[in-house]
Amino acid sequence: SGETLEELREQVDQLNNQLVELLSRRGELVAQIGRIKSSEGGTKFYDPKREEDQLRLVRQANKGPFTDAAVSAIFKEIFKASLDLEETREQRKLLV
Amino acid sequence: SGETLEELREQVDQLNNQLVELLSRRGELVAQIGRIKSSEGGTKFYDPKREEDQLRLVRQANKGPFTDAAVSAIFKEIFKASLDLEETREQRKLLV
Repeated sequence: SGETLEELREQVDQLNNQLVELLSRRGELVAQIGRIKSSEGGTKFYDPKREEDQLRLVRQANKGPFTDAAVSAIFKEIFKASLDLEETREQRKLLV
Repeated sequence: SGETLEELREQVDQLNNQLVELLSRRGELVAQIGRIKSSEGGTKFYDPKREEDQLRLVRQANKGPFTDAAVSAIFKEIFKASLDLEETREQRKLLV
């Protein structure tokens, strides 16, 4: 198509904003999950099996152009941020 | 709310699928941008200033619960995957 570099970059910026919005919604869900785990008396939030399950579904959903390895690397960073979110929340709870 | 762990995890899986879809659309845009850069004779795809601009906008868009640092880390992984995509494409072009 005849779109300019600038136009394509604007579209990337719009997609970035949508990604941030989805990440925030995902963060809220993870925080809810963390509260359930806490209320059940658990303090272990890291769940490698659940992460592996998610990665399997993510690879199934991926139709490119990113490789499965690239998408997995991005999701591992999302998992890491999510775990930080759950653990920080738990840490705050333990300190009060 | 009274949602169970299982229901929340299904919502996370749905969000993951939406994230994969947005990432794929972003990947296609980046591939288009790569083609424009190539056609203009450039072979340098890494553009730290453009990445910094994107991160600034992403931080502005972020309303939590993730910290700006967490969202930046996720986007840096997206940038890395995107650069791989542009460079692999260029490498293929150079090899034919």
